[in-house]
Amino acid sequence: MNDGEDCAAPPQLLSPHSVTDLLHSVDAFLFDCDGVIWKGDKLIDGVPQTLQMLRSKGKKLVFVTNNSTKSRRHYAKKFHSLGISVSEEEIFSSSFAAAMFLKVHDFPREKKVYVIGEEGILEELELEGFTGLGGPEDGKKMVQLKPNCLFEHDKSVGAVVVGLDQYINYYKLQYATLCIRENPGCLFIATNRDAVGHMTDLQEWPGAGCMVAAVCGSTQKEPIVVGKPSTFMMDFLLKKFQITTSRMCMVGDRLDTDILFGQNAGCRTLLVLSGVTTQSGLQDPSNHIQPEYYTSKVSDLLNLLGP
Amino acid sequence: MNDGEDCAAPPQLLSPHSVTDLLHSVDAFLFDCDGVIWKGDKLIDGVPQTLQMLRSKGKKLVFVTNNSTKSRRHYAKKFHSLGISVSEEEIFSSSFAAAMFLKVHDFPREKKVYVIGEEGILEELELEGFTGLGGPEDGKKMVQLKPNCLFEHDKSVGAVVVGLDQYINYYKLQYATLCIRENPGCLFIATNRDAVGHMTDLQEWPGAGCMVAAVCGSTQKEPIVVGKPSTFMMDFLLKKFQITTSRMCMVGDRLDTDILFGQNAGCRTLLVLSGVTTQSGLQDPSNHIQPEYYTSKVSDLLNLLGP
Repeated sequence: MNDGEDCAAPPQLLSPHSVTDLLHSVDAFLFDCDGVIWKGDKLIDGVPQTLQMLRSKGKKLVFVTNNSTKSRRHYAKKFHSLGISVSEEEIFSSSFAAAMFLKVHDFPREKKVYVIGEEGILEELELEGFTGLGGPEDGKKMVQLKPNCLFEHDKSVGAVVVGLDQYINYYKLQYATLCIRENPGCLFIATNRDAVGHMTDLQEWPGAGCMVAAVCGSTQKEPIVVGKPSTFMMDFLLKKFQITTSRMCMVGDRLDTDILFGQNAGCRTLLVLSGVTTQSGLQDPSNHIQPEYYTSKVSDLLNLLGP
Repeated sequence: MNDGEDCAAPPQLLSPHSVTDLLHSVDAFLFDCDGVIWKGDKLIDGVPQTLQMLRSKGKKLVFVTNNSTKSRRHYAKKFHSLGISVSEEEIFSSSFAAAMFLKVHDFPREKKVYVIGEEGILEELELEGFTGLGGPEDGKKMVQLKPNCLFEHDKSVGAVVVGLDQYINYYKLQYATLCIRENPGCLFIATNRDAVGHMTDLQEWPGAGCMVAAVCGSTQKEPIVVGKPSTFMMDFLLKKFQITTSRMCMVGDRLDTDILFGQNAGCRTLLVLSGVTTQSGLQDPSNHIQPEYYTSKVSDLLNLLGP
C-alpha cells in the first residue's frame, strides 16, 4: 500500500547548495536544544559560531524544547553560562507551554495545579499566577499502606501537569491519580511524551514519556500534550514573531517530536544526527517521518556555507 | 455491528438456583484475593465460612492473585493471620508466575534478573535459584545527573521483571530501561498490568500497570505478561489439580483480569462486586467482558445456598 506518507520524498543530505537555498528562503530557525545545541551540560561543537552567523544574516532564532525541568529564565541562564546570548522571549519550553495552556483556557485562578515534574513547571505556573503543588517538594514523601489510613488529596486541584521528574515516586503517582480520577473535570496535561532524553552528555535517561505513561497506566486516561509534536506552542511563536510558518525551519534531533512538529506546523525541516536519531534509524523502512534535509550537526549550516 | 462479544449472554445475578447448579457442575473454585477475599489487610465479611462450606463439599480451592508484592509463603502467612487455612500449593501469585516463566523458558542460571517490584518477586526468584537484583534495595538510590558521569548497569542481566513497586524511583527506571535497551535479548516481563489495586482497605492505589507503563514509556517496548488475564499460570494449575477447566469457576472482582482470565482459560466465571468493578461498570455499554454470573460478595455462595 502506498499512502501519503510513504510517497514523501526521501530526505536530502544537506549540501552547500541546499544550505544557500535554505538561508534564502527562511526567516526564522527553530531549534530544539537537547541533542542539537547541547548534550546535558556540554555544548555541541560549533554551535555558537553557527548561531552568530544566522543572527548576522538577520535570521530570527527560537529555541523550542520539550525539556520541562527548567523555566525560560533558567534556560536563558544556561545559554549564557555556555557563552550564547539568548533572551527569555526566544525560548519556548514545554514548562512554559503548560502554563500558557492553562492561561489560554482560562483555568480558574482559585484552582490548584498538581505537578509531577521539576522546578521549571512550578516557576512558569507561578509567573502566570497559578498555584502549583507537588514537584520536587513531594520527592521525599512516603506513603503509608496501613488499614484505616486514607491518602488525602486536595479537592481544589483542577489540573495535573506531568513532565520529566527525576524525583518520581509512589506518593506523587497516587496523588496525581486521585486528582485525575476523583476531582471532577480535572485536566491531565503532559509537557511531552519523549521516551528518553540526554539528561547527561554520556547517555539517555527516561524522559517525560515515562512519567506520563505511568499516570496513563494508573488512570487509564490519555493526556493533553502541550509540547512537541503538538503545535500548541506555535500559536505563541507566530504572535511573537509574525513570520509565516513556511518561512521557518525546524531543526531537531528527533523524528517523532521535532520533525513531526515542524511538519505539523507547515515549517521546513532539518534533522541533525547529533542527538537521538541515527542515520540508520532515519533510513529504517519502519520510519515514516521524513525531514526535508538531514545533516550531522548544526554547525554544518556554517561549514557548508563556505566563506 | 454484532460481533461475538456483543452477542454474549448478559450476566446473571447469582440466585439460589444457580448457586446449586454451579456447585454441582464445578470441582474447583479459583479465587482472586484483593477485593474478593480481603481489602488491604481486612477480610471481607463471610469469607472464612464460605471457603469452609466449599471445602466441606469437596471443592478444590485455588487463589490466583496478580499482586506480586508477596511470595506464596507470605500469602499463606497472610491467610493464616486472617484465620483461614491455605497451603502454599493452593496459591498462584504473579510473583511465582514470573519465576515459573523463567524456569519454563530455561532462563540461564548465570544470568541475572533486575526487579522493579517488591520482596515477593525476589523471594520467588531465589526459591527457583535465580539471582535477583534491584527491588526494595534500590528504593533509596539516587541518580547523579552530572557531566562525564555514566550510569552503569550489569551487562549480565538477561531479564527485567516489573510488578507493583511502592518504592519506584528514577534510578530503577533508568536501570530497567538500560538493561532492556542495551543487554542483547533481555526479556521484559510484567507480573500484570492492573491499573490500580486495593493496597489499603479504604482506597485504590496505582497498580503494576503504572510501573509497567512507565517502562514501556521509556523503552518503547511491550512486556510479556505472566499474571491474569494471561493464562500462563493455568498450565501449572492444571498439572497440580488435574481438573478440566470447564469444571473450574473463576471468582474475581475485575473484568479485564479475573473474568477475562477465566474466559481465556475456558472456566465458568463469577464476578463479585466487593472490589474494583461496580454494577454500573459491569452494565456500561462500553464493557464487552461479561461474566456468566455476578453477585455482591463471595459469601453469597453460602447465603444463597440455604440450609
